[in-house]
Amino acid sequence: MPYVDIVTALALIQFIVFGFKVGSARTKYGVKAPATSGNEVFERLFRVQQNTLEALIVLVPGLYLFSRYFNPLWAAGLGVVYLIGREVYAASYVKDPAKRGPGYGLTFLPMVILILGAVIGAVRYLVVTA
Amino acid sequence: MPYVDIVTALALIQFIVFGFKVGSARTKYGVKAPATSGNEVFERLFRVQQNTLEALIVLVPGLYLFSRYFNPLWAAGLGVVYLIGREVYAASYVKDPAKRGPGYGLTFLPMVILILGAVIGAVRYLVVTA
Amino acid sequence: MPYVDIVTALALIQFIVFGFKVGSARTKYGVKAPATSGNEVFERLFRVQQNTLEALIVLVPGLYLFSRYFNPLWAAGLGVVYLIGREVYAASYVKDPAKRGPGYGLTFLPMVILILGAVIGAVRYLVVTA
Repeated sequence: MPYVDIVTALALIQFIVFGFKVGSARTKYGVKAPATSGNEVFERLFRVQQNTLEALIVLVPGLYLFSRYFNPLWAAGLGVVYLIGREVYAASYVKDPAKRGPGYGLTFLPMVILILGAVIGAVRYLVVTA
Repeated sequence: MPYVDIVTALALIQFIVFGFKVGSARTKYGVKAPATSGNEVFERLFRVQQNTLEALIVLVPGLYLFSRYFNPLWAAGLGVVYLIGREVYAASYVKDPAKRGPGYGLTFLPMVILILGAVIGAVRYLVVTA
Repeated sequence: MPYVDIVTALALIQFIVFGFKVGSARTKYGVKAPATSGNEVFERLFRVQQNTLEALIVLVPGLYLFSRYFNPLWAAGLGVVYLIGREVYAASYVKDPAKRGPGYGLTFLPMVILILGAVIGAVRYLVVTA
């Protein structure tokens, strides 16, 4: 499933880029480690990165489980929606946290489909092979 | 190993539910993003979610590595103990953070068994096939 | 790929140990849950643990993807560099956060090689089999 592998790697690279932005903001706004607050822009970039970490722990296993029980190409497609959604989410969060909803939804929806698909697929497999 | 896949997906769904509770608490107690402090109940729910993220990065690889070197059914069973332990942990943390110990222990023990089992199993495999 | 499995498990055990240190510092410096700030030493240990979580979400999939498209032994070797780098990072961060750079670089470099290797390997595979 090279398509799923590529999407997974791109999602991790996107996360690394979000991390770079947090690092730059540390220097730019003088938020010295170990502090993670004290400047509004830094805090927005930091929350974008942290929330993306929370998303990845679901997305990565979800991509592979959905691939196993349904279809790797569909999984990869859902992963692409996630990637685009995360860019929208990050851009809108930094501009105005109150407007992060639509981008968040665009990343949350594929995650939920992947995970629910995994449960349904695995249970169906157990029933069919029982 | 459909049982391990189901337990993994359930652990991720449990994490998503913990995330929903953080989101609701944001609205209910007026903790505006990007802030993650300012209300005691919000902070408890947020720490439950964050600590679960820390657990999942160990649990998910642990489940599959233990399955590979020992037994997928035992791995799934340990995963079920984790799932129950997390519910106990979350409920007790929100009531009184000082009483989060027993629930935490019930999630930590299966995680440690899975990971130590993985190391022992992999090393044994190397020795046996050497 | 038992070598990659062992390195993965060791990286997760290292993370658990960092977590223990955060827990001890909570007691020692009187930082009561759910607080995550209020004492400089606690905050340093907490950031080491959190940053390691951010690293693991990239490292673990990276190790397996690199193994699939290149070489499990090379992946394991890069993982060992990561393990050493994290020890250097943790020790230097706790002493003086401003000096965490070299240790961080030693963990970041193998992570980037693993992930970029995964993308290049998967794309090459698609091209070759097209």
